[in-house]
Amino acid sequence: MGKQAQHAISPTRQEDYPEWYQQVVRAADLAETSPVRGCMIVKPWGYGLWENFQRALDGMFKATGHKNAYFPLFIPLSFLEKEAAHVEGFAKECAVVTHHRLEADGTGRLVPTGELEEPLVVRPTSETIIGAAFAKWVQSYRDLPLLINQWANVVRWEMRTRLFLRTTEFLWQEGHTAHATAEEAHVETAKMLDVYADFAENWMAMPVVRGEKTAAERFPGAVNTFSIEAMMQDRKALQAGTSHFLGQNFAKAAEIKFLGPEGREEYAWTTSWGVSTRLVGALVMTHSDDDGMIIPPKLAPAQIVLLPVIQKEDVRAQVLEYCANLKRELESVAYHGRQLVVEIDDREVRGGGKVWEWIKRGVPIRLEIGPRDIEKDSVFMGRRDRSHKDRVGVSRSEFVATITKTLDEIQQTLYERAVAFRRENTRQIASKDEFYAFFTPTAGQKPEIHGGFALCHFSGDEAVEEQVKADLNVTVRNIPVAEDAQKLGCDGSPGTCVISGAPSTRRVIFAKAY
Amino acid sequence: MGKQAQHAISPTRQEDYPEWYQQVVRAADLAETSPVRGCMIVKPWGYGLWENFQRALDGMFKATGHKNAYFPLFIPLSFLEKEAAHVEGFAKECAVVTHHRLEADGTGRLVPTGELEEPLVVRPTSETIIGAAFAKWVQSYRDLPLLINQWANVVRWEMRTRLFLRTTEFLWQEGHTAHATAEEAHVETAKMLDVYADFAENWMAMPVVRGEKTAAERFPGAVNTFSIEAMMQDRKALQAGTSHFLGQNFAKAAEIKFLGPEGREEYAWTTSWGVSTRLVGALVMTHSDDDGMIIPPKLAPAQIVLLPVIQKEDVRAQVLEYCANLKRELESVAYHGRQLVVEIDDREVRGGGKVWEWIKRGVPIRLEIGPRDIEKDSVFMGRRDRSHKDRVGVSRSEFVATITKTLDEIQQTLYERAVAFRRENTRQIASKDEFYAFFTPTAGQKPEIHGGFALCHFSGDEAVEEQVKADLNVTVRNIPVAEDAQKLGCDGSPGTCVISGAPSTRRVIFAKAY
Repeated sequence: MGKQAQHAISPTRQEDYPEWYQQVVRAADLAETSPVRGCMIVKPWGYGLWENFQRALDGMFKATGHKNAYFPLFIPLSFLEKEAAHVEGFAKECAVVTHHRLEADGTGRLVPTGELEEPLVVRPTSETIIGAAFAKWVQSYRDLPLLINQWANVVRWEMRTRLFLRTTEFLWQEGHTAHATAEEAHVETAKMLDVYADFAENWMAMPVVRGEKTAAERFPGAVNTFSIEAMMQDRKALQAGTSHFLGQNFAKAAEIKFLGPEGREEYAWTTSWGVSTRLVGALVMTHSDDDGMIIPPKLAPAQIVLLPVIQKEDVRAQVLEYCANLKRELESVAYHGRQLVVEIDDREVRGGGKVWEWIKRGVPIRLEIGPRDIEKDSVFMGRRDRSHKDRVGVSRSEFVATITKTLDEIQQTLYERAVAFRRENTRQIASKDEFYAFFTPTAGQKPEIHGGFALCHFSGDEAVEEQVKADLNVTVRNIPVAEDAQKLGCDGSPGTCVISGAPSTRRVIFAKAY
Repeated sequence: MGKQAQHAISPTRQEDYPEWYQQVVRAADLAETSPVRGCMIVKPWGYGLWENFQRALDGMFKATGHKNAYFPLFIPLSFLEKEAAHVEGFAKECAVVTHHRLEADGTGRLVPTGELEEPLVVRPTSETIIGAAFAKWVQSYRDLPLLINQWANVVRWEMRTRLFLRTTEFLWQEGHTAHATAEEAHVETAKMLDVYADFAENWMAMPVVRGEKTAAERFPGAVNTFSIEAMMQDRKALQAGTSHFLGQNFAKAAEIKFLGPEGREEYAWTTSWGVSTRLVGALVMTHSDDDGMIIPPKLAPAQIVLLPVIQKEDVRAQVLEYCANLKRELESVAYHGRQLVVEIDDREVRGGGKVWEWIKRGVPIRLEIGPRDIEKDSVFMGRRDRSHKDRVGVSRSEFVATITKTLDEIQQTLYERAVAFRRENTRQIASKDEFYAFFTPTAGQKPEIHGGFALCHFSGDEAVEEQVKADLNVTVRNIPVAEDAQKLGCDGSPGTCVISGAPSTRRVIFAKAY
């Protein structure tokens, strides 16, 4: 990198965290803004990452009995209106189609014509349109449970957008299920929350806390909303996935009814659950450092890059052939349900430029291969979980024999680092003063990086939520399930609300949030 | 099926071909219409099919060096206007977003508000928006070729829609590439046409003819359009995929320029190519019969269904365990790049209902398994390429040992049948009278089923195209490449136009078309 910087990414996290994020996304070539307000372009390396998210999640959905289907992009306005809380929640951010053709006006400019009788909303989520289909599909208890997932694009008109974290159009999956009993729908809601937590922890190497949302943060139209919450490196919480128990609200709105075994007509109980391309942003902010992106091997579009070192033309053929052979050998290795993916970067770029490009892209393992390595039948390896200076020569056979172990080790290291970071920045807080101090940057702190997860007793009083939101921009992220509360070090004993002093039976996570 | 019908689908192809198609799609549970004008709901069995289309095609795109990316759903009106022929081609069928929120009016009804300064068109195709990105990505000849594919939904406002064949919203992939020379772009255009033909023939078991379109049928804005054309069972042609050489038209509209090796600035040469969920409709109309859908094994969402025969409760556990074991054994078998997929249908349905459901869904192999089969360690097999009455007992071990061979045989049979059907309904025609007779139903023919592929000399005169279109609703489907013309039996000698008598160097396919 020469003398201009100690780090590949400028600014660093400490210098300007929000800008660091944008620069990491840019340097890793994941995505860019588009000329369309708030819509992003997901570039090949970013889309390759998303494809791996999809593959892993889709396998988990299918293993839990769900089938994929596809429903219309457009929702008639009258459908959205059927569930009052739902439409209230989305009305302010809907893209609305009002015309179905373009015609030249007097001046030759194209203007929309063919006005629709009923405007169509570009789906912000699909409960209402899928509910209408379910109403047709469900007649008898024998048709239940109905377990459907959809991979789709959705649109929510956002005023302030950031690549992956908040965009007007985003890609996601939305699960929609219908059940004969409330109990079964509750089980489904919890099961899919577990699937998301499993994916976050074991694929993204990102620790998360499962828990229920308070009423203030509930999905519009849901009875209960559950989330997984992760801590980013600026100590803010990021809601990484949600699972909703919808009760009979949407079933009543869409008339999803069935005849029970005793011949009585009943409304179904439904759930919905989703994760989106936002997870890519979460991945970036969980693992990246001041040299750029770091991708957990299990999700990397390529686990290994081979960088031929060709200083003289007469060795080119030999080096490239060695690389091609090594690539073939490595790509025959199975790794968590697919084959390893290996890139060879044989572009002619001078100096360290190519190496740095792959560091910034976060590829887990880099191998530099020149004539001398070939002579010794060895490879010169850099690992993205270690310093870029920390490179070692390894015999080729040993490298190949231990590759999956090495990758699993990197995956584990990233997870442990993230767990340690979360531990360092999680605190049980018992007094209002300490609470306010925790969420107020000190003189030595950057305003963008402070606070963390405050594990506090809270009695459920909405006035308290409103107050800390107004004062500190802090909200209840969720009410952790017992197992996850314990992992965070909660003692589990009752206490009194950190703000109001009212009696409380359990702690919640307060944090600033994305 | 009792006495009410000899066939599971009513009407039959002969009785009412268009209605037969709708009934096959419905009986196979592939898709249904939605409450949103022209938009369909793709149901799990249909979507499972599409997922297999995607998996196979995506592998082929990646093997030819393409990477996936994702671009915005919305296109600013001003972008669309940049290429005159392009906007002209799509202006009449554009869904236009004009507002970005909903608000209650005086009466409490929601109405669109927040009018956009510039209307946004829901993408009918993405040349213009992807072109704008390419203009940023391409600076030097070193950035070329740029080989990108997108899996996406697109919207073209259609007045008359039919499930899969023509819908307002459909799912597709669109490849977009940029090259340094016209020659390279031509090679790409031809290569992707070959990929489509390979997929159609070797995965869909659907013979196709590769060829160039005449100017009348060209993609709006393209220099040359090439297609693959398949013959449906009503003898109409279906355009199953297109590949466009766009010359420098879109590069000039979007300013995709690069510095050549000599430092001269040049416009890039671009291509685009796409196939859509229309292919599912093509699959239905190529292979299905009067008992419903027939799915080629390589694309089937499940290759085998196990139907437990449980007449007494005391055998239930034994039969279900036998089925579960057999499923496990079969699903460990590799089949064309993935594992076999086996369904067990253990629903309690009386009589032959379940068997007929799977016949109509087109699953390649059905196994009925009851206590007596288990005693003999055998299975009772029905193949979807044979009559439903034609079932045989096979020893379990033999069935398992030969399963991939059996499936390949079914795949091959379907392909050969389709080739034979096309051969029977393709004719070289030399006189105008014969041409008009060929495309006019005789007294004994259903108007919906007649004609076929007329291989005729044609000099390229647009007046001739207009005339046969006006008289017979017949168009030039494409000008077959030499290899495919030969397969159709073309002698390759020059001649004179079948209509005008003008000298002609090659034959084209005239047909009625979807």
